[in-house]
Amino acid sequence: MPRPFDPGYFEEPFLSLVREYPGEDVYPPGQFRVEWGPIFHRGRLDGSARVLVVGQDPAQHETIVRRVLVGEAGRRLQGFLAKVGVSASYVIVNTFLYSVFGSVKAATRRDPRLVGYRNRWLDALLIGKRVEGVLALGHAADEAWQMWKATPAGAALDVAYAGVTHPTQPESSSKGDRTKLAQATKKMLKSWNVGLQTLAPAVQHPDTPRPLVLYGDTWAPDDRLPVPEADFPAGLPAWMHEQDGWAKRVGKTLLAKRRNITITVPKGTVQ
Amino acid sequence: MPRPFDPGYFEEPFLSLVREYPGEDVYPPGQFRVEWGPIFHRGRLDGSARVLVVGQDPAQHETIVRRVLVGEAGRRLQGFLAKVGVSASYVIVNTFLYSVFGSVKAATRRDPRLVGYRNRWLDALLIGKRVEGVLALGHAADEAWQMWKATPAGAALDVAYAGVTHPTQPESSSKGDRTKLAQATKKMLKSWNVGLQTLAPAVQHPDTPRPLVLYGDTWAPDDRLPVPEADFPAGLPAWMHEQDGWAKRVGKTLLAKRRNITITVPKGTVQ
Repeated sequence: MPRPFDPGYFEEPFLSLVREYPGEDVYPPGQFRVEWGPIFHRGRLDGSARVLVVGQDPAQHETIVRRVLVGEAGRRLQGFLAKVGVSASYVIVNTFLYSVFGSVKAATRRDPRLVGYRNRWLDALLIGKRVEGVLALGHAADEAWQMWKATPAGAALDVAYAGVTHPTQPESSSKGDRTKLAQATKKMLKSWNVGLQTLAPAVQHPDTPRPLVLYGDTWAPDDRLPVPEADFPAGLPAWMHEQDGWAKRVGKTLLAKRRNITITVPKGTVQ
Repeated sequence: MPRPFDPGYFEEPFLSLVREYPGEDVYPPGQFRVEWGPIFHRGRLDGSARVLVVGQDPAQHETIVRRVLVGEAGRRLQGFLAKVGVSASYVIVNTFLYSVFGSVKAATRRDPRLVGYRNRWLDALLIGKRVEGVLALGHAADEAWQMWKATPAGAALDVAYAGVTHPTQPESSSKGDRTKLAQATKKMLKSWNVGLQTLAPAVQHPDTPRPLVLYGDTWAPDDRLPVPEADFPAGLPAWMHEQDGWAKRVGKTLLAKRRNITITVPKGTVQ
């Protein structure tokens, strides 16, 4: 059985982009986990993408896999993309190359070097390409998009755009309160429905044309879909594709936790 | 400052090889850590390799980095390659795709599917290519080489070959005994000197021609060299290139340990 994988960065301009990423001078270690290295993208770099997604920042699973949005937020995103008929023709970049540690200062967010590097990626993925819709996940991603739209190249490109609530905002805002989680999920899915109504008609060349089915007040079974194996680097085991929760930051102090990622193969994989 | 990286598997025959690797039916989980996935190679896949190295099996650092021989054994190998003038023009594959767990049964080692897949890699790296010398590290690697040489393609290729002691055999055989370690190191470096005397004259197109300097009875400062950053996938942090000891298998039971890899950023990297 062949196992598809993502060949990654082997052509310009991506070869250069991945060689020339900004480090600690642009992403201060007080605000970002720069010590784990940058994580660049997920999805198609070959010009076949019809939807561009701007996410926020990578976490521990993304750090091990070296691709963005591979966990729960990624599965929710796959469900959204499927609703606009897109199962493979997407590409995802994040607002930030590194995992946010604490919060990001406005001066950092607006640093022309940070913005400029991200804009080089957006230029590479959008100018002269086939993208028909852009989706931003969360406020920071929306800001990233607006910053690119403020460039001459951004202003010149006519493309549908939806900025929606981040896929795991309900969990992060409700902090374990089930009632709040249900309310936040309902609110988020409303925001996603607005996004769907913008992007579904704009995506003229979906992978699989289908009638638009909006979200309900909570998750339906098909609203969360697997992240395709073809989005992962070569040779990663199935449990890294199929679930998350296998990578945790463990430690007794904040520094110990920051220095650690503990990977545990899910129960039942090894006997 | 640009950060070089290895673009990996993006051209045939490597695209297909990396899609079609054998799994548990060929590599039994009782003998291999198949749950962590296969690790394929390190070094040049573009036909520029002058030396082909056959290693043994990957361990935990290789599992995270997804390249072979990136730890101490790899640094010792880089020192050997430098002595034959090769700083970049090499490619490394292992005897086994997966980390050995316990020991490997003869029937597994000789399984035509296991051998056949490995021979496809050796065919891809050797037939019609520019390799001038082959180095095998350890007994299993020597056997792998002999198995390829027994194929029609292997028999037809005239290439210098040296099978030497595995670079960390002194540590594994001496089990903490310093006297035994010194003796085993001396013995290994003798074996490496024999290998150097075979390969140095055979490598007619080194990256940096230099007079052959043999090993002494123990390690000299330049005998261990860094694994080049250009051999690692995109975006990995510097501490993953520059040292090892950052990945450990932790757990109270054999199974817990088998299911775990704990990564710790080296002290001083984060303040």
